[in-house]
Amino acid sequence: MNSVVDALIERLGENEIVMGDKLHERATSYWNPAPTQALLLLRPRSTEEISDILKICHAHDQHVVVQGGLTGMVEGQVSGEQDVIISLERMNAIEAIDPIGGTATVQSGAVLQTFQETLEQDGLLFPLDLGARGSCTIGGNIATNAGGINVLRYGMMRDLVLGLEAVMADGTIISSMNRMLKNNAGYDLKQLFIGTEGTLGVVTKAVVKVFPQPRSRHSAMVAMENFDQLTGFLNRLRVELAGELSAFEVMWGNYFHAVTAPGWHRAPMSRDYPYYVMLEAEGTQVEEDAAKFNRVMEGAFEEGLIVDAVIPKSETERRALWDIRENFEALLERPPFYLYDVSLVIPDMQAYVDRLTANLKARWPNSECIVLGHIADGNLHLFVCPGEPGDWHYESDSIVYPLLQEYGGSVSAEHGIGIEKLDWLGYSRTEAEITLMKQLKNSLDPKGILNNGRVVRA
Amino acid sequence: MNSVVDALIERLGENEIVMGDKLHERATSYWNPAPTQALLLLRPRSTEEISDILKICHAHDQHVVVQGGLTGMVEGQVSGEQDVIISLERMNAIEAIDPIGGTATVQSGAVLQTFQETLEQDGLLFPLDLGARGSCTIGGNIATNAGGINVLRYGMMRDLVLGLEAVMADGTIISSMNRMLKNNAGYDLKQLFIGTEGTLGVVTKAVVKVFPQPRSRHSAMVAMENFDQLTGFLNRLRVELAGELSAFEVMWGNYFHAVTAPGWHRAPMSRDYPYYVMLEAEGTQVEEDAAKFNRVMEGAFEEGLIVDAVIPKSETERRALWDIRENFEALLERPPFYLYDVSLVIPDMQAYVDRLTANLKARWPNSECIVLGHIADGNLHLFVCPGEPGDWHYESDSIVYPLLQEYGGSVSAEHGIGIEKLDWLGYSRTEAEITLMKQLKNSLDPKGILNNGRVVRA
Repeated sequence: MNSVVDALIERLGENEIVMGDKLHERATSYWNPAPTQALLLLRPRSTEEISDILKICHAHDQHVVVQGGLTGMVEGQVSGEQDVIISLERMNAIEAIDPIGGTATVQSGAVLQTFQETLEQDGLLFPLDLGARGSCTIGGNIATNAGGINVLRYGMMRDLVLGLEAVMADGTIISSMNRMLKNNAGYDLKQLFIGTEGTLGVVTKAVVKVFPQPRSRHSAMVAMENFDQLTGFLNRLRVELAGELSAFEVMWGNYFHAVTAPGWHRAPMSRDYPYYVMLEAEGTQVEEDAAKFNRVMEGAFEEGLIVDAVIPKSETERRALWDIRENFEALLERPPFYLYDVSLVIPDMQAYVDRLTANLKARWPNSECIVLGHIADGNLHLFVCPGEPGDWHYESDSIVYPLLQEYGGSVSAEHGIGIEKLDWLGYSRTEAEITLMKQLKNSLDPKGILNNGRVVRA
Repeated sequence: MNSVVDALIERLGENEIVMGDKLHERATSYWNPAPTQALLLLRPRSTEEISDILKICHAHDQHVVVQGGLTGMVEGQVSGEQDVIISLERMNAIEAIDPIGGTATVQSGAVLQTFQETLEQDGLLFPLDLGARGSCTIGGNIATNAGGINVLRYGMMRDLVLGLEAVMADGTIISSMNRMLKNNAGYDLKQLFIGTEGTLGVVTKAVVKVFPQPRSRHSAMVAMENFDQLTGFLNRLRVELAGELSAFEVMWGNYFHAVTAPGWHRAPMSRDYPYYVMLEAEGTQVEEDAAKFNRVMEGAFEEGLIVDAVIPKSETERRALWDIRENFEALLERPPFYLYDVSLVIPDMQAYVDRLTANLKARWPNSECIVLGHIADGNLHLFVCPGEPGDWHYESDSIVYPLLQEYGGSVSAEHGIGIEKLDWLGYSRTEAEITLMKQLKNSLDPKGILNNGRVVRA
């Protein structure tokens, strides 16, 4: 026992604290089943409790790790033996829904899918959506500026947050619970807490935008012969469907081929095309939208922008198509593999993937570079599979990122930097930028207690 | 002459410097014809020159005022006798347009309308639009996070900026010229320079989103009998037109009545309704969209959501309707008047306006509170006309803002704080927030040389 633990127990009571065996029963993260390591884990019920926790930790120079749904991809949630964990799991209330204003007020610990489903009952839509929806939390979505499959139409989490409340390293509560679409009264402080991965403050609640549920939804999976068709088709949809285009998810042929191998997903069309796209449009006019969608697809066929297409006839068929895109367990069968989340402009994508594949082959003759992504957002996910046993993570990074730098790409499109990508931040950001990031961190958390060692080295 | 002037002349040469009579020929701002006051005005041609200017000014503790198109509403552009002005007027190049990536790269001094028209030639749209389009600059739009008439569909300037370059107070160049929709590699530093009114850095160029030109555009001016019809109609359009609804501009009856008085705009319908709306939808299907728009309007009539409507039959007629909304010279004939730019949630708007009108009447029996606004964005513009000669600005503010505070409104929806609203920032933001703003200012501009005295008092 040390004095910071005593002080925290005194303030919160034993009931809000998890230690010892109970703590070790918890997995480190969604990705790592090893027991959680920490001094203790706190489960506060209010912003005021979090403020008091941080005041105590600040006074004792105690490092704190903030946890949401533990699904983050870059080790941001991973604590060490000497850390205090603040888990937002008990702060999960949906406090208010305003259909007229188009806003909802929600605490950080609310699970994304729970929030989506609650709004659905009122005919409303919270459009942020990603594979981890069943575990990830609104607070985690904010802290990492989550992206996902509907960014094309609705933007990233940053674009959906109107206001928020956060607690700074010294316990100061910053309440910026703006509910208006427009508010230029002074600096937009919420930006300090969105996408900064909990290093500048603990997000405790937020006001987010909500939308009417779309009345119609039309989906298709299509195939192309080459990259020019892919960009040509995307541009055509941008003109023909404009704001209605809500998803445009590309799978390179090797991804599709792998996840539709015997024993995995059923392939709804030939497995040998170079590119596949899962696309979706959301509209307002039930009958007209169906006719329009079909007309756009037929036009794309006639102009040679697509060479094959499947249009699902039921929700079950639609879900089966989406599963091809979202459920890639087949890939996890071939360790080692390293997952990347890069962004670069569309015109550079094909050249980058081709050169990367060649460089990987030169190093590991049996390697594969399996690709999928939200290309309209400039975002590719790469599975690098060296095809040889061993720990090649750093070497793989050293092939992926320097080449990306040549194209002015980003080492993290949506996953963040966390701990895992710390070494590579400089491949996407200048020295002046990183210095400014450190300056912000040092100014707002001079003792470096909040999610220390994430994003930038202090 | 003093040493800072000598140093600047030595670095830039006389040709880039405006002083003395030449300087006094320039008006203080779009709103104030008095001669510009300053030590000198600099017209740099490059980011590097701006960096050197700021290094010199920083070394000499010299205050700097940054100027764009001079149309700002809150005196942010107004310089004093001892200031050095940096005008971005020569940095107005449109550097690149990428139709596939949907981006354009533009220097800060480019005029908004010039930029819009250049893109139009390529079939592209830059959707930020506001009355000052012919004078305001992209850099000013960024520094003030401009709003305008298309926020409903496309967001504010913040939502349209992907990357930017800025020069900090000490001359450090921060280049964050991201071109991707998604980029979570470290802190999103551009947020420090968007909407901070030039107090944290001088924005020199930006990468912004551009869109395909819409294929169809349908407009109407409609009238309502009460506020419930207004919100009911808006909600109906949000469902029926969803992302296609690009403008929904409300005029209270007293605004419409005033600007259609004899000698001003021709009234296209009765002048006696309590509410009027100018609305516009942008679509992708020329024929279907026309049918849909008419159907939606007819449905709104049948359900009693609107009581009168005019649909323009030509671009000339459309422009005439927009002029009623955008050109309010008739109001400028009744000085004194004070213009406000507040935001509050839609359900509170009517109560706020009613109480404010009553409070103003209690103080000035002949007063009028003339209202219009982007209500879907929560944004109202108020013209307070005391109806008595005199300088009532402070007293008017003292009636408008404390009442707004009761509703959790914002003292500035889109105009910013500048100098004019400094006293009122605390009515929309907490002490902790203002302290954090000062902390940011002091950290990034410790000598307080950049647009000093704007937004927050250091």
